[in-house]
Amino acid sequence: MKDLFDKELKVVNLGLEAFQQALVQSGFQAVQVDWRPPLVVSAKNREILVRNRESIGMANKKAVDIVLNGKPFLVGIEKAVDVLPGMKRDSIFHAGPPVKWENMCGPMKGAIIGALIYETKAKTPEEAERLASSGGISFSPCHEHSAVGPMAGIISPSMPVFVLKNEENGNHAYATMNEGLGSVLRYGAYGPDVIERLEWMAEALYPALKKAVAKLGKVDLKNIIAQALNMGDEVHNRNRAATSLFYRAVAPSIVRTCPQPERAAEVLDFINSNDHFFLNLSMAASKAVLDPASGIKSSSLVTVMARNGTEFGVRLSGTGDAWFTGPAPVPDALFFPGFTKEDANPDIGDSSITETGGLGGFAIAASPAIVQFVGGSAKDALDYTLQMYEISVAENDVYRIPSLDFRGTPTGIDCVKVVEKGILPFIDTGVAHKKPGIGQVGAGVVSAPAQPFEKAAEALSAKLK
Amino acid sequence: MKDLFDKELKVVNLGLEAFQQALVQSGFQAVQVDWRPPLVVSAKNREILVRNRESIGMANKKAVDIVLNGKPFLVGIEKAVDVLPGMKRDSIFHAGPPVKWENMCGPMKGAIIGALIYETKAKTPEEAERLASSGGISFSPCHEHSAVGPMAGIISPSMPVFVLKNEENGNHAYATMNEGLGSVLRYGAYGPDVIERLEWMAEALYPALKKAVAKLGKVDLKNIIAQALNMGDEVHNRNRAATSLFYRAVAPSIVRTCPQPERAAEVLDFINSNDHFFLNLSMAASKAVLDPASGIKSSSLVTVMARNGTEFGVRLSGTGDAWFTGPAPVPDALFFPGFTKEDANPDIGDSSITETGGLGGFAIAASPAIVQFVGGSAKDALDYTLQMYEISVAENDVYRIPSLDFRGTPTGIDCVKVVEKGILPFIDTGVAHKKPGIGQVGAGVVSAPAQPFEKAAEALSAKLK
Repeated sequence: MKDLFDKELKVVNLGLEAFQQALVQSGFQAVQVDWRPPLVVSAKNREILVRNRESIGMANKKAVDIVLNGKPFLVGIEKAVDVLPGMKRDSIFHAGPPVKWENMCGPMKGAIIGALIYETKAKTPEEAERLASSGGISFSPCHEHSAVGPMAGIISPSMPVFVLKNEENGNHAYATMNEGLGSVLRYGAYGPDVIERLEWMAEALYPALKKAVAKLGKVDLKNIIAQALNMGDEVHNRNRAATSLFYRAVAPSIVRTCPQPERAAEVLDFINSNDHFFLNLSMAASKAVLDPASGIKSSSLVTVMARNGTEFGVRLSGTGDAWFTGPAPVPDALFFPGFTKEDANPDIGDSSITETGGLGGFAIAASPAIVQFVGGSAKDALDYTLQMYEISVAENDVYRIPSLDFRGTPTGIDCVKVVEKGILPFIDTGVAHKKPGIGQVGAGVVSAPAQPFEKAAEALSAKLK
Repeated sequence: MKDLFDKELKVVNLGLEAFQQALVQSGFQAVQVDWRPPLVVSAKNREILVRNRESIGMANKKAVDIVLNGKPFLVGIEKAVDVLPGMKRDSIFHAGPPVKWENMCGPMKGAIIGALIYETKAKTPEEAERLASSGGISFSPCHEHSAVGPMAGIISPSMPVFVLKNEENGNHAYATMNEGLGSVLRYGAYGPDVIERLEWMAEALYPALKKAVAKLGKVDLKNIIAQALNMGDEVHNRNRAATSLFYRAVAPSIVRTCPQPERAAEVLDFINSNDHFFLNLSMAASKAVLDPASGIKSSSLVTVMARNGTEFGVRLSGTGDAWFTGPAPVPDALFFPGFTKEDANPDIGDSSITETGGLGGFAIAASPAIVQFVGGSAKDALDYTLQMYEISVAENDVYRIPSLDFRGTPTGIDCVKVVEKGILPFIDTGVAHKKPGIGQVGAGVVSAPAQPFEKAAEALSAKLK
């Protein structure tokens, strides 16, 4: 003991980094250990999780194999009401976990107003708000109907939706077609330009793409995503390569099946003008391979991460359809000129299904251009992905990252690892204005909040006993 | 002195690495210095180059600024004989430095046989060979006519060529349209399928693309190349992204201007089926910005590196149109099944104009997938590019490499640096079978040979005195 105090002070610090920095500034040697406290789970449940480590691991292996082996294809495009399970004439599906009209955030309310005008159920925003708050509309999460939607994620009955089939498991997944950037419904805008664009998409884009896909039979989305990861996309905040490859795949068929060449050219122009056109397909492809991994006893695999702009919700394979929620955080973002974090709505959208499936923020090493959203470097992109391996069950054998010597993307979030290591999933995201009717104000990154994972771990423990 | 020999032996080795390896194997400490001998230039001329260092540097700055500021656009597509300077009815232009028929390699002879059949100047390969060897055909390098051609690089009078304009300097550059992979003219094949494809390109592809480009006015190739470098291309051995972006840019106009939709669809299918379609455009874009940098007094900037399959030729800005040549090396390659290095022709083609302009092998860090051609890793790709900065005059402010935190590509090879440092330009390349009539047997990488650079440095010194 005396020896210890005779020596020069050398500190190994765990926890708050400020202590270590203060020591270094005062001229002492101090090393910071890369360690963070685990999330808050009761001692009893923590003990249950440790005791069941082996059975959880086996269940997770089974679940993630379903995800890895999934084969998502685009097989058609149909009107939502004709194909979406549980969709009725008075239905509106939305992003994230369940939420009542009175608790919805601005951009979600704005998108619902737009959808009701588009459906000709209301003539004015005021009329739409009255209808929405009257109880005359049945709101439900997309995720409860095999569907996903970016940002507000609104799907109303007459919107066309991509129909995906997971050929490995036979299940389907659905998503609307991406509207493009600027003032668009999914960011909460509902002006006449927004409604006109939705009408054009239903009248021109939908039949042209539907016929083209019918002629092709199917489009292999797993192949396009795998290629796009070699071309700078992470297929969440960057979809330029995937959109290009999809465009190349469908353009000749659009030309062959569209009766009017000018209409075909307009459809090509529309896709060509929107580098995010593929986003909704990458989301639905992720949904298609994650859905069949749900309901596996003892599995702590995360099958859904989704935000409604108010709450962030998580589902685990082993707890089936139950939602575990907590307040949605506000993203760190690069804001468009004239906007600041003050204008930003909390995180919103089902697009984090891409991270849930090992893409997006989990694959950001494939897309260094995206890290510029938060002033980062190429090394930051590598580090973010490397950290996600810490909380993932497996590495994808098809989705690979060139700059990591084609290592597979970290795939399948293990909620137990998240809780034990205190490492939260890293998510790329767009940012909506918090008021309805405005639209996108930026793009950035966000870490998932702790609370939904803590609750999910508690619930899984309760089932394991 | 005694001290030295009393101590343990520790060796610092320069030159042949085998010495250092032998010492280490024998249990001694030995460090290898990363140094290589300079190339062979006479002592007198070496002294001249050192004495003129400042004026050479200023001249190179002037020359490379022309390269960096160049603005290459695709402005049209025409028949070669109508636009190529100096092309006559009996002309055939070829890749690399000048070469007589009797000295031409197999694939170049094969491609000329095919071109003469395509031009209906011969009915059989034997007839074509007789004509070619009779003196009745005027052979000349593409590079002497503002043009470039991949591999054999054959341009005959009735072939359609892309017309590029460098809007900064007003000069034009030309290249044929890429035929695709497999059995194709540029790799020396000349069978009926090759000729039929060339005919279809002249009758269907050419008018469709010509009208589409006319409708667009121009296509910004610098913009496409800059984007493609962010999408895994180095636009020499990998052009998937650039081809996709070019396709997106022209497809709507093809549909609008092509009278028959089925013809438009066939044209889209053709481009879609060939990820190298953009190669000829990236080559011509490089040629367009390098040509105006020629003829600057005292400049040791390399304006051309080109191979005819027999010799490797170099031109410097300060020595104008003079060629400096040496034997072309055989590339290290990944060979197609059934072929080996024994089958490979020495390096061939004008495509090394991309490296001359700071792309291809110089930008390989942007394209880790390419390094797999020689069993390399992502780090190898970074290292190759980092080494090319050592022999380059500048860094491109538009062409940038994501994995190097968007550092500009090394641009403008300085022949004096090549000679002083003994670092030779690194080139991505395709590999042709050495016999005529067969085609491609692999793809790989190659270092330029020393001799052309040694001769060029001697010639520049003689002018400097």
